[in-house]
Amino acid sequence: MSSKHFLDSPDHLVATSLRSLTLTNPGLALDLPNKIVYRRPGYGPASQRVHIVSGGGSGHEPSFAGMVGPGLLSAAVAGTIFASPSAEQVRAAIMARVDRGRDGDEGAGVLVTVMNYTGDVLNFGVAVEKARAAGVPVEMVVVGDDVGVGRAKAGKVGRRGIAGTVLVHKIAGALAARGYGLREVARVARLAAANLVSVGASLEHVHVPGRAKPGPGSSDDDDDALRDGEVEIGMGIHNEQGSSRETLALPALVARMLAQMLDPGDADRAFVRVNSNEVVLLVNNLGGVSVLEMGGIVAEVAAQLDATYGIRPVRVLSGTFMTSLNGLGFSITLLNVVNTDLGGPGMIELLDDPCEATGWSAPIRKETWEARNAATRDQDASLGGDVPPTGLALDRAAAQQALTRALEAVVAAEPEVTRYDTVVGDGDCGIGLRRGAEAILNHLQSHPLTGDAVADVAAIVPIVERSMDGTSGALYAIFLNALVAALRTQGAGEATPAVWAAALRQSCDALSRYTPARPGDRTLIDALYPFVETLERTGDARRAAEAARLAADGTKGMKASLGRTVYVGGSGFEQVPDPGAWGLASFFLGLAGLEEGGRADGRR
Amino acid sequence: MSSKHFLDSPDHLVATSLRSLTLTNPGLALDLPNKIVYRRPGYGPASQRVHIVSGGGSGHEPSFAGMVGPGLLSAAVAGTIFASPSAEQVRAAIMARVDRGRDGDEGAGVLVTVMNYTGDVLNFGVAVEKARAAGVPVEMVVVGDDVGVGRAKAGKVGRRGIAGTVLVHKIAGALAARGYGLREVARVARLAAANLVSVGASLEHVHVPGRAKPGPGSSDDDDDALRDGEVEIGMGIHNEQGSSRETLALPALVARMLAQMLDPGDADRAFVRVNSNEVVLLVNNLGGVSVLEMGGIVAEVAAQLDATYGIRPVRVLSGTFMTSLNGLGFSITLLNVVNTDLGGPGMIELLDDPCEATGWSAPIRKETWEARNAATRDQDASLGGDVPPTGLALDRAAAQQALTRALEAVVAAEPEVTRYDTVVGDGDCGIGLRRGAEAILNHLQSHPLTGDAVADVAAIVPIVERSMDGTSGALYAIFLNALVAALRTQGAGEATPAVWAAALRQSCDALSRYTPARPGDRTLIDALYPFVETLERTGDARRAAEAARLAADGTKGMKASLGRTVYVGGSGFEQVPDPGAWGLASFFLGLAGLEEGGRADGRR
Repeated sequence: MSSKHFLDSPDHLVATSLRSLTLTNPGLALDLPNKIVYRRPGYGPASQRVHIVSGGGSGHEPSFAGMVGPGLLSAAVAGTIFASPSAEQVRAAIMARVDRGRDGDEGAGVLVTVMNYTGDVLNFGVAVEKARAAGVPVEMVVVGDDVGVGRAKAGKVGRRGIAGTVLVHKIAGALAARGYGLREVARVARLAAANLVSVGASLEHVHVPGRAKPGPGSSDDDDDALRDGEVEIGMGIHNEQGSSRETLALPALVARMLAQMLDPGDADRAFVRVNSNEVVLLVNNLGGVSVLEMGGIVAEVAAQLDATYGIRPVRVLSGTFMTSLNGLGFSITLLNVVNTDLGGPGMIELLDDPCEATGWSAPIRKETWEARNAATRDQDASLGGDVPPTGLALDRAAAQQALTRALEAVVAAEPEVTRYDTVVGDGDCGIGLRRGAEAILNHLQSHPLTGDAVADVAAIVPIVERSMDGTSGALYAIFLNALVAALRTQGAGEATPAVWAAALRQSCDALSRYTPARPGDRTLIDALYPFVETLERTGDARRAAEAARLAADGTKGMKASLGRTVYVGGSGFEQVPDPGAWGLASFFLGLAGLEEGGRADGRR
Repeated sequence: MSSKHFLDSPDHLVATSLRSLTLTNPGLALDLPNKIVYRRPGYGPASQRVHIVSGGGSGHEPSFAGMVGPGLLSAAVAGTIFASPSAEQVRAAIMARVDRGRDGDEGAGVLVTVMNYTGDVLNFGVAVEKARAAGVPVEMVVVGDDVGVGRAKAGKVGRRGIAGTVLVHKIAGALAARGYGLREVARVARLAAANLVSVGASLEHVHVPGRAKPGPGSSDDDDDALRDGEVEIGMGIHNEQGSSRETLALPALVARMLAQMLDPGDADRAFVRVNSNEVVLLVNNLGGVSVLEMGGIVAEVAAQLDATYGIRPVRVLSGTFMTSLNGLGFSITLLNVVNTDLGGPGMIELLDDPCEATGWSAPIRKETWEARNAATRDQDASLGGDVPPTGLALDRAAAQQALTRALEAVVAAEPEVTRYDTVVGDGDCGIGLRRGAEAILNHLQSHPLTGDAVADVAAIVPIVERSMDGTSGALYAIFLNALVAALRTQGAGEATPAVWAAALRQSCDALSRYTPARPGDRTLIDALYPFVETLERTGDARRAAEAARLAADGTKGMKASLGRTVYVGGSGFEQVPDPGAWGLASFFLGLAGLEEGGRADGRR
């Protein structure tokens, strides 16, 4: 277990954590001496006649205080971590922190719900009997949903209460919010509780803040710690012993847990016959499981429920509803939905009713559940990407020749680029460029240019995307895609140098949105920008290519300045040009028909 | 770090976790090959013209797929754990998994949002440029809110994106749901992003499922692990190095984090001048912090924001919005709310707008935030507990004498009870009973009985509650409180044995709701029930007391059968009576004036 905490003082922790609920929900108030979080007067439906008070030890957040709000609890009473609040605290909640009935309204009153732990049952029980002795109409419902410990072992004490309890709260809370009376609310709460089965599984005990940390030399050595790979089925939310420890992977673990909940032949555990057409599944995070893993667990549970038991839950809830601090475990709960006999809302409807509490995380609306929308978007993602010609005309033969020459120049420059990159980078820049160039050359042999600038550049883009990887591949892909879009905006006509320059400028602007690299950062940008700028200014591809080569050569001695992120180029001050810039300049020189001259000029 | 997982296969984990979202929200569909979760056609407002696509590496759940839903994202693209999705996956999302504009609607289009990590920016960038090349109106917004690494260290790469990103999604998603056009949605998203500051702190690195486990002898020993008590400020959501490691307790840690976000004099970090009248606070769980601790952190952050900076956030959100798997850390985000210049909704209104996504946990409504309800329930909880006389008459003198005699019998029986409890229990039963009896005797001397049965029993109840503790104290408290309530229902008249018997029966029934103990379980119930039954049947207190003593004697050799829970009585088979039952029988004998005879009969 991890015994690290940001806050180690348990009393301060509990007090401030309760206080935080008044910050995340301004409709709540805190009675700090009694550790009661309650709805402020006027917060909630005015027609509500029954108010629900619950609570228990701290360490199970967001239960119970996080469940206070319209449509759920009216007040929650907290004990210290893993310990019941006192009867006096609970009595204060019933007598003074909720509306406890109205003169002349027989159905008004307070419903007290508590999980089946001896301390909680007795302390809440004392408070309930005291309130009754004082004439307050109070009903109490005890929830025990955990099948982790079977009848033989649990004996007359019965099932412990775990996360299924929150479904009782939601159902009873919704009924209360709708204005039902105490008898009905208590009856339906008991009905829900009687139709719940839950079981948990954990990979570790949880550490309680403020307690001695386990470990060698500690007085509280966790001798009972679970070994790596071991899981304890049925472990309680206060580290109580479960039914077994086993070395199980997820599918088998879930199968075992579902059998404990659903096997009607298991005399020790068949607490509820789950045979409703409407079953609700709740998968609860005990606090320390990643949301990613919780998703995997939910999917496995749902798959096995369907395959093994033919159960397709009508609602699937997953989240952090009742924790064991940051316990590395989860619990599965099934609610067997039965008729409420209210002549009114059923359990599903009550679960779907809106409520407002920071701890209730089931935001999917009734309408969405009932839409039975199975529509998908299966259209082929590759469709819609075709770029039609726009009539921006190239001299087909000349362009094919120039492009071929440029790509061959890149291939020819490979040893040089590789040498530079061996000095300043990881040595793969030249090979990458050559691989891309060769792929386009191959493509051009079978698919010669058509003479439409947009269609021709667009045809090359996927070749680059497939053959060049890494950061520089992405940068080339961005640039070329942006070039297609830019050329499209030029409309029909002749692809003059001015047209190219304007489109290239747009592409540079696009590229700059995705990389912080600018001239001087020792990247391929150092060759690209001078080419585009010179072409814009002069309309002369040769002068532009020469400018690119000159600038590439000028990267010698520059420092790569993009921090830890390796963009194109390396990180040294070495006296070689940046390999990415050099390779791109070679392309431009070839394009302009200057490959020999450029190489001669640049050779050292 | 904990390297234990329920699911260790990362590919299976990511795939099933994405699948689970279609179970917890049936409005969502999954394109598994492309790892895209998207809204089914028809799910969301028909008038929505702009659709938001986001995504990134897995391991940050509920971001991003859990944020897909009406009012938030339209699709999310997932990579493997902590790795960007490919450009092709993102392109598929833009081109084929959302409505990407409508003919003739200039404002329709796709907004792509991504966090500022090189791989994400480039891969999403390629996809965006490809979509643009194909004629789809797309805007891209890059979010970098983390101030954990300052300007000097981050360089031109800029701030990383962390949890503040979800506020951008919520604001932009609400605007899109309201039908605004692409230009406005993108502009306001950028505006929100530009007004965000966040910083995280972690106690541990997080372990990635499927990766080698750190530890002695492992090839991936986590040499860089944090020591006990150490916290790393600014650690990234992929375990990236933060700005410092220090040994800090919570208040000082929060102070340090807030200074990094808010100090305008810190040239390395003053990214946003937080000077709005409206500031939003988001405290995000990186996945492994208990909800209890998160509450403590929220309260501390809010307290320091107020005290040190005079900032009282208009909205306080806390929850698990963007994780680093089950990272043992949290992040703080502040949104400096500025004018959206829309002539329409402001950022707060957009944050408050309803949405439907399993990952968005901010369920408090605009009306609740704006109610400024500061009402509390401060009435004294001790009030309302007074029990008025009901005119159920006792013979005052006889009752005072009988009760005194009964309590003296309990005191006299203490050595015997203690001896029995030393054999079968923990030896404190006799002392506890004597303490309670003496307390009542003292009370009776200063407050003699009044002759009203209800008022007289009610006056004794608090004495018992204060002087008797443990499980038996709670059982006596429940019984006596129930007795008061039961006597009240008897109305005015004479407190005959039949009246007492009826009330006692009701009290037994009440007690049975809080303890599973029944006759035969070797508890005080073994003396209580025979007394009540015999009194009911015969109306004769003497015969009832004799029956109680006989039954108490009969507990010899009984096994305590309430499992692990120690109720009154012990757990052995030893040949002594149950001490709790014996003590209660002594009381009844005294009450009936049989203390000598009873003791003689029962003495062995």
